Amino acid sequence: MDKSDVIIIFDTTLRDGEQSPGATLNIDEKLEIAHQLARLGVDVIEAGFPIASPGDFEAVRRVAREVGQLENAPIIAGLARANKGDIDRAWDAVREAKRPRIHTFLATSDIHLTHKLKISREECVKRTGEAVAHARSLCADVEFSPEDAGRSDPEFLYQVLEVAIKAGATTLNIPDTTGYTLPSEFGGLIRGIRENVPGARDVIISAHCHDDLGLATANSLAAIQNGARQVEVTINGIGERAGNASLEEIVMTLHTRPQQFSMRTHVDTTQIVRTSRLVSAYTGIAVQPNKAIVGANAFAHEAGIHQDGMLKNPLTYEIMRPETVGLGESKLVLGKHSGRHAFQSKVAALGYGLSAEDLNRVFERFKELCDKKKVVADADIEAIVNDEIYQPMELWRLEHIQVSCGSGLRPTASVTLRGPDGVVREDAAIGTGPVDSVYRAINRIVQVPNELTEFSIKAVTEGIDAVGEVTIRIEPDAANGANGHGEGYLTQAGLRARTYSGHGADTDIIVASAKAYMSALNKMLTVVKAGK
Amino acid sequence: MDKSDVIIIFDTTLRDGEQSPGATLNIDEKLEIAHQLARLGVDVIEAGFPIASPGDFEAVRRVAREVGQLENAPIIAGLARANKGDIDRAWDAVREAKRPRIHTFLATSDIHLTHKLKISREECVKRTGEAVAHARSLCADVEFSPEDAGRSDPEFLYQVLEVAIKAGATTLNIPDTTGYTLPSEFGGLIRGIRENVPGARDVIISAHCHDDLGLATANSLAAIQNGARQVEVTINGIGERAGNASLEEIVMTLHTRPQQFSMRTHVDTTQIVRTSRLVSAYTGIAVQPNKAIVGANAFAHEAGIHQDGMLKNPLTYEIMRPETVGLGESKLVLGKHSGRHAFQSKVAALGYGLSAEDLNRVFERFKELCDKKKVVADADIEAIVNDEIYQPMELWRLEHIQVSCGSGLRPTASVTLRGPDGVVREDAAIGTGPVDSVYRAINRIVQVPNELTEFSIKAVTEGIDAVGEVTIRIEPDAANGANGHGEGYLTQAGLRARTYSGHGADTDIIVASAKAYMSALNKMLTVVKAGK
Repeated sequence: MDKSDVIIIFDTTLRDGEQSPGATLNIDEKLEIAHQLARLGVDVIEAGFPIASPGDFEAVRRVAREVGQLENAPIIAGLARANKGDIDRAWDAVREAKRPRIHTFLATSDIHLTHKLKISREECVKRTGEAVAHARSLCADVEFSPEDAGRSDPEFLYQVLEVAIKAGATTLNIPDTTGYTLPSEFGGLIRGIRENVPGARDVIISAHCHDDLGLATANSLAAIQNGARQVEVTINGIGERAGNASLEEIVMTLHTRPQQFSMRTHVDTTQIVRTSRLVSAYTGIAVQPNKAIVGANAFAHEAGIHQDGMLKNPLTYEIMRPETVGLGESKLVLGKHSGRHAFQSKVAALGYGLSAEDLNRVFERFKELCDKKKVVADADIEAIVNDEIYQPMELWRLEHIQVSCGSGLRPTASVTLRGPDGVVREDAAIGTGPVDSVYRAINRIVQVPNELTEFSIKAVTEGIDAVGEVTIRIEPDAANGANGHGEGYLTQAGLRARTYSGHGADTDIIVASAKAYMSALNKMLTVVKAGK
Repeated sequence: MDKSDVIIIFDTTLRDGEQSPGATLNIDEKLEIAHQLARLGVDVIEAGFPIASPGDFEAVRRVAREVGQLENAPIIAGLARANKGDIDRAWDAVREAKRPRIHTFLATSDIHLTHKLKISREECVKRTGEAVAHARSLCADVEFSPEDAGRSDPEFLYQVLEVAIKAGATTLNIPDTTGYTLPSEFGGLIRGIRENVPGARDVIISAHCHDDLGLATANSLAAIQNGARQVEVTINGIGERAGNASLEEIVMTLHTRPQQFSMRTHVDTTQIVRTSRLVSAYTGIAVQPNKAIVGANAFAHEAGIHQDGMLKNPLTYEIMRPETVGLGESKLVLGKHSGRHAFQSKVAALGYGLSAEDLNRVFERFKELCDKKKVVADADIEAIVNDEIYQPMELWRLEHIQVSCGSGLRPTASVTLRGPDGVVREDAAIGTGPVDSVYRAINRIVQVPNELTEFSIKAVTEGIDAVGEVTIRIEPDAANGANGHGEGYLTQAGLRARTYSGHGADTDIIVASAKAYMSALNKMLTVVKAGK
C-alpha cells in the first residue's frame, strides 16, 4: 500500500473547517463549496458531522446526493463518534453517494479518557472494535481516528489500532488534535504505527494535523515521508483554533518538490485560488496577505532588489508560477455593453450553475453595476452572485434605507423592512456612526437582542468605485434571553457562544452593511425557528 | 558556541517585514515598533536598509540613537549589500547604538550570480572577503548572509563562508530566500556548514527562512536542531511574498516543548499579542483569525465536543495558556468618569510614552468617545492613539465632511479641507457610494491623481457602537504622470508600484474613511516632497 505514489487528499473544510468560530455555513453554501472541491479534484470530502444537528445531517445528505453522484465523484465522508447512534446517522447521510465513507473516532490519550470521556483503556478498546465493526457492516469504506493520538501512549495506541483494523477499518487516521507535535515526532509516530501495528501496511495511514505551533504542513509532510498516504486538510487552513493543515501548502509542496517526494495528487492546482476565495467569502474568514500560496502578496514583490532580479529572471525569487495556482487570468472581462449571453458564459466559466431565475436576478444587478463602474471584474461578479444567491431564507426583507452623517453631525438612519407576515414597517434611529444608526433602526423593528462581535469591510477589486463586501458576525444576546433555544453553548474564558455570519455587497458600504446585518439576522432566526 | 542554550532572536520586522507590499512605515511608526520590540525582549533589531533612501537611513539612525541607547538595549543592525558605499552608510546609521551590527549580504547561487549580479564565482568570493573585512574595520559585530543559500552549490557556499569567517564575520546567516527547502534539507544545510566550513563552530550560525511553502517555522526549528543559534524572524510572519518565519511561532514552540529543545530565548512571551497588534495596525497587514498563536481564534473553541472537553479540563484541547502570550488581560478599563490621571496611567501601561501635548489631544478624543460608548476598551484607546499621534505630517487637514446616502439615492458628500497654504477650500461630489463620494470631493480639492488599491474596515472591539478602523492603500497614478518623481518602481506582472497606506479611526466609518484617505495622501505627498 505504501508503494503507491498517490497521496489521497481528504478535505475537511466542511467539517473541521466549519468548526472555526463564526464560520457557520448554510446548506447552499456547503453545496457550492462541495461542487468546487470536486472541481479542484480532492479525493474525499468530509461533508459534516450528521448527528450534530438536523441541519448538518441535511447538508451531508445533499452533498452525498448531488456532488457524490457526479461523474468521477469524490468519496463523501460523514463523521461519527464511536457509538451506534452516531454511526447509523452518518450512514443515512452519506449512503446516497456513489462512494460513501463512515469516519468514526474515539480518543486514546489518557488525558481525554480520564477527564473528558471518563472511561478506562479497556472500555476504549472495546468501543473501538464495536464501532468499527458496526460501521463496516453498513459501508465498505470505514475510517477510524484515535483522537489526540499525538499525546497517547504509543503501546496503547498500537493496540487500539490493531483492533480497528481487525474490525474492518480501511483507513487509520492519526490526528495531532492539539497541534503539539514536531515533524520529527509526528513522522516517528507514523513510522512506529506502520512498524508495530499488525496489518497497518494493508490499510491507508492518514495524517490530520493542527497548526497551533505553525507546524501543520511540516508535520503532514513528515507523515508522508514516513508512509502516510492520505492527508486531512482544509482550504486556507481554517479550522478550530489555529486551524488545520492547509490543502494548498501541502499540494504545492508536493508539486514544487517532485524529486523529494516522487508523489502526486489528483488536484487540479489551477483551481486553488478560486477555491480559496470561495471558502473565504462564505465562511467570512479572511486570508492574510502573507498566507503561503493563496495570500494576496504570495506572488508580489516590493523591494527594488527583488524587482530587479524578477525582471531579469523570475526564477531568482520565484519557485512557482502564479498561473499554476490559477492566478493572473483575465482580470477585466465585461462592461456596459455585454449582453445576457456573454454574461451567462462568464458566470458558467466562473463555476456557478445558476437557475434561469437566479441568473436573471444576478444579470439585473450586473447591469446596475455597469452603470456605476467602468470595468466589471471577475471578483465583482462573484461578489454579486454570492450576495444575491447564497443568502439565508429571507424572513425579513430590506426595502429601503437612507442615512446622513458627517463630522459633527448626529448619524441618522431611516429603514423600511418587510416582515415575515408581509407587513411593511419603518423606523429611524440615531447612532454613533452611520452603520450603528442603521442597525439600531433595524433593531427597533426586528427586536431580536443580539451582540455584534465582528464587522469588516473590504473592497473586492482595486479602484475608488469598487464594490464593498461586508462581513459581520452576531451572537444571540444571552443576557436578554434570546439564547434560550436549547443550544447550550457556554460562554466562558476561551469559549464562545454560537455566532452567525452575514455578508452583503454593494458599491454603497452603508447599504452593504445593512444587507449583511439582515443576512445574519435571517440566518439566526432561521436556525432558531428550525430548532437546530 | 553551539553548547549555548540561548537562541538569539533577530527581528527583521522593520527591514524584511517592511518590504511587504504596501507595508511602508513612517519614522515614528518604526520607532514605536522598535520600542515595543525592545520591551518584547528580542536580541537584535534589524532596523532597515540605510542605503535604500534618506528616509530609511534616518529611521535606522533614530532607532539606534533612541532604542539602541536604552538600558539592556538590543543590538541594532543595518543591512548593506557587499560594497563599501552600502557598508559605510549602514555604519553611519547604526554607530550610535550601544551595540551596533553591520549585516552585509551577497548571493551565492548560480542563478543569482548569472542572471542578477552577472558576476563569476571568483568575483563573488573576492567581494565577500573585501566587504566583510571593511565592515569589520568599522564594527566588531558583523553578520554575513549568502543570499539564496538554499539553492547554492554547497561546496561553493562553504568556500564563501570560510572567506567570510576569515575576514571577521561573527555571525553567518543562512537564508532560504525563496522558501524552497524542506526541513530535512535546511537542517542538513546547517549541519553541512558546521561540519565542513573551517571556523564555523566559533561563530553564530543563523537561519533566515521564508514561508512560500508554509514551512518557515519548521525550517527554522530544523536549523536550531542542527546547531543554529540565531533565527531571523518577523512579527506575524510578514515579509516579501508569503513572508518570513514568524517570531511568535518559533518562540512559543521552544517555550511549549522544552524537553525537545532544552533551549530558551530572552523573549517576554506576555508581550507577544500586544506586539502583534501594533505591527498589524501600523503596517495595515491583517492577521488571519486562524494564524497560530496571534490569530483571533487561536485560543477559541467552537464545537460542542471541544467546549465540553475544555470545561472539564482545558488541557484536553489546549497546549498553551492564553495568558502566556498576553491575551485575556483586563478588557474593560475606563469610562465616562475616568479622570486624566487614570487615563494617563492606562496609556503608560499600554506602553505609550506621550508628550503632554499629545496626551491632551488623546484625552480629548477619549472623552468624546466616552459620550458615545458605554465601555472604552484597551483596543479603543490604542486606536485613538494610533489615529491621533502616528500620522504623517498634515499637509492637508480635514476640517469637515457631510454625507447622505441610501438605497436608491445618489450618495453625495461635501468636504472642507485646509491646505498647506492655510487656505480653506470646500467642494462636493456624487459617488457610487458614500466613501467614493467623499474621496471624489477630496480629489477635486487636492488634485493628486492616484489609484485606490485596497480598502478595508474593521471594528476594533465587539459591540454595535465600536470604533471602526479603516486601512487604505493608494498608489500614484502613473498614467497621469504623478509617479514621475524618480522612484523607478516598475509595474509588471507580479510587481507593484510603490503604495502608501493610511489609517483612520472613528465611530463613524465614513469619517474614519476620510481620515484614512487624508493620511495616505499626506504620506504620499510628504514622500514626493522629500524626494525619498
